[in-house]
Amino acid sequence: MKGTEGYVFNQTMLRIKDPEVSVPFYEEVLGMKLLGKFDFPEMDFCLFFLGYSEQKVPDHPEEKATWIFEQPALLELTHNYGTEKEVGPVYHDGNSDPRGFGHIGISVPDVYVACERFDKLGVEYVKRPDDGKMKGLAFIKDPDGYWIEILSPSGLAKITARES
Amino acid sequence: MKGTEGYVFNQTMLRIKDPEVSVPFYEEVLGMKLLGKFDFPEMDFCLFFLGYSEQKVPDHPEEKATWIFEQPALLELTHNYGTEKEVGPVYHDGNSDPRGFGHIGISVPDVYVACERFDKLGVEYVKRPDDGKMKGLAFIKDPDGYWIEILSPSGLAKITARES
Repeated sequence: MKGTEGYVFNQTMLRIKDPEVSVPFYEEVLGMKLLGKFDFPEMDFCLFFLGYSEQKVPDHPEEKATWIFEQPALLELTHNYGTEKEVGPVYHDGNSDPRGFGHIGISVPDVYVACERFDKLGVEYVKRPDDGKMKGLAFIKDPDGYWIEILSPSGLAKITARES
Repeated sequence: MKGTEGYVFNQTMLRIKDPEVSVPFYEEVLGMKLLGKFDFPEMDFCLFFLGYSEQKVPDHPEEKATWIFEQPALLELTHNYGTEKEVGPVYHDGNSDPRGFGHIGISVPDVYVACERFDKLGVEYVKRPDDGKMKGLAFIKDPDGYWIEILSPSGLAKITARES
């Protein structure tokens, strides 16, 4: 589209209660890398950018920020200071009223292999791969309760071929 | 991370009221391409996958689906049949109580140039580039009211360098 050259879908932002819980979840369970952390103490929040880039992140702060905001497919986790001290869930996952946001989705080579690993790590499920009509497709929960679809390209190709 | 090789952040799913409004918005205002549409009439919903890929989308349905679910940085819009007939807003943007999801973010070469174009297209703003403390960073609204951050790598590098 003329006028939109160079546009990149850079980020999806989710608010999180506690970065000491959520950042390790995305790193250790989903294998993302923490690419950058930006603190805004004047405004009482901190941003964590995670993604699957294999590239070396530049060391110099300004080059690093420029690089991060050029990348596609980053997850931006926003920590508003103090939420980690609240009791119980702080944020709404969007999947009960009022609905809106649904989920993020991670494509994996094999959903069943991924879920065996998630089971060992004690991950909570919304839907196991063989629950419901759509076999071979799982939904797990992140520490705030946000839904994460775990799908495989070949599995989804079968599901969509059957339905469409 | 061992065990997560080949993982891709494939999609961010948002529910939309009316695809006849939202799909053209993402195509014409933000320059995304509609890469695939999958109908699930048994379950009364339809999925639209949009993104910035320059590659040719395979024609064969199963190859096309496999290809889509391998891509990073897609937007998945879910239309539950019939919502387009409801009066007024149907979905919650996540930025008022109960909060959760915040926004998607599009990186553009020049935020001011992008916003001049958005102005001509009659786009609604949450924050114009010079509103508030963070200059050179805008938030627009999609047809359901979801927030879309419009940022530039160099602009964000300046903001984060100043704050951190």
